[in-house]
Amino acid sequence: MPQNPEKLRKERQDMAITLLACGIDPKKCILFEQSRVSGHSELTWILSCMTPVGWLARMTQWKSKLGVNKGVKSIEDVSATDGLQLGLLAYPVLMAADVLLYRATKIPVGEDQVQHLELARDIAQMFNKNVGQPFFPLPRPMISMSHLTKRAKTKRIMSLRDPNNKMSKSDPSDQTRIHLVDKPEVITSKIKRAITDSISGITYNKIERPAVSNLIEIYAAAKRVSIEDVVKEHSESSMATFKNALTETLVVSLESIQEEITRLDKERVYVQSVLDEGARKANEIARPNLRNVQTLMGLL
Amino acid sequence: MPQNPEKLRKERQDMAITLLACGIDPKKCILFEQSRVSGHSELTWILSCMTPVGWLARMTQWKSKLGVNKGVKSIEDVSATDGLQLGLLAYPVLMAADVLLYRATKIPVGEDQVQHLELARDIAQMFNKNVGQPFFPLPRPMISMSHLTKRAKTKRIMSLRDPNNKMSKSDPSDQTRIHLVDKPEVITSKIKRAITDSISGITYNKIERPAVSNLIEIYAAAKRVSIEDVVKEHSESSMATFKNALTETLVVSLESIQEEITRLDKERVYVQSVLDEGARKANEIARPNLRNVQTLMGLL
Repeated sequence: MPQNPEKLRKERQDMAITLLACGIDPKKCILFEQSRVSGHSELTWILSCMTPVGWLARMTQWKSKLGVNKGVKSIEDVSATDGLQLGLLAYPVLMAADVLLYRATKIPVGEDQVQHLELARDIAQMFNKNVGQPFFPLPRPMISMSHLTKRAKTKRIMSLRDPNNKMSKSDPSDQTRIHLVDKPEVITSKIKRAITDSISGITYNKIERPAVSNLIEIYAAAKRVSIEDVVKEHSESSMATFKNALTETLVVSLESIQEEITRLDKERVYVQSVLDEGARKANEIARPNLRNVQTLMGLL
Repeated sequence: MPQNPEKLRKERQDMAITLLACGIDPKKCILFEQSRVSGHSELTWILSCMTPVGWLARMTQWKSKLGVNKGVKSIEDVSATDGLQLGLLAYPVLMAADVLLYRATKIPVGEDQVQHLELARDIAQMFNKNVGQPFFPLPRPMISMSHLTKRAKTKRIMSLRDPNNKMSKSDPSDQTRIHLVDKPEVITSKIKRAITDSISGITYNKIERPAVSNLIEIYAAAKRVSIEDVVKEHSESSMATFKNALTETLVVSLESIQEEITRLDKERVYVQSVLDEGARKANEIARPNLRNVQTLMGLL
């Protein structure tokens, strides 16, 4: 904020289009916008009243924004919290509500979200204890990319320009990431400029070769093979050869998604109907669950 | 929490009965339960995303609970935030949403709530700036007890046992407060045991005689006269005489309220219908306002 409401409205629909293009099937999934299900905010407030501030102040994401690593510790220090809104501190409680509102059990997350899911479990356990019954099942993480070997510990895609940061849409530089809609020539350029190191050959070692190991992981994920397979395939490759193969794999794997995005972009009435139906179905599950929460607490 | 849901349900209805008995007229006012209007939580979340944590960390009520006066400053210090939930830190944002959801302009508050109302103004101004239009009017406080002279600066009723703390239902000791439902003999006993000082005569001086001045303010408020009138009336009185007059005034002024509470206690179906109708009317105002907020931000 200040944000452009027209832009946000379009971007929300674009996001729905992208998810549908990637294979989310509205016959199997409920695809909906959070702001159209009031239960998310309502449950967030209820859970806020049980969640100690200390739990939230110790969350890694909050601490990294607060700058505790630079020795700033107090939320009253204006220079530390300048520009940090309550929504950021409270965000893990909203995420817990997003999960618990549906009494969900298995949550697909990246490893950087495991801490938030653990918090959701702690909050669920506290709620269950407070009301004296196991109302919320304890949600468990489903970590993606499990087809990779155990050597791929991070299970996160890192920035193309800095392997210490995760690849993120919030990064100011577009060169750090591949968008699902990037054209072949853009992907070619981004992979060509992706940082590597001065060691020769293609080997996987996340400590000594984080940038190259990240490219290997991206390649393995896009090609749906193991990291060992990638290293074996490119044992004789130069970096240029490997990068060409990676580019080719990314272009091919994104091709059908991009075609589907183009098609759905012309079917926005259909996309909106998916979101409308999703909001209706989500509310159908959320409302009785919230009512039960409110009744258990004596709020209804 | 853990709380007794049955007890809370009954206490919510008791509170409605008390308010009706004190003269709240459902033909002129909308009396409703906050938890039945989802817009309060929804707007709270939206405003949370604009409210700096630093603004909340500097609120007097939060600081007094955090124990900053004892030199504890960081929310990461477990001993400081132990038992302090996010709901307490975020509460001023909920209060701002309570006001702004109805685009209210004049808010009846005690002086201890003026800081929270100033925060609501700051949040409203920030929202208006973000969306580029004066959507929320800036709410102004209406301080009660304005019939008292300017010498009565605090405009708060203080504890009967400690004039440095406000009279509060959360105080563990029942002797610190007069309940609207207290029977004459209970009021007599509480006023008799109310602390005073060793200075003779009835004079008003909040610095040197805080306890006696508090009793004078209660007397003036219950009798709807000025502090000067009380001091003049009791210029010759002993403390015992003054306390008897105060007790008598309190008993008389609470008599009609207590009769009405007894009557409404037998009319719980009617009381519930007032709350149902209140929730309906409150939602009628809140829903379009929230929809406008969401539209202005591009969330709808």
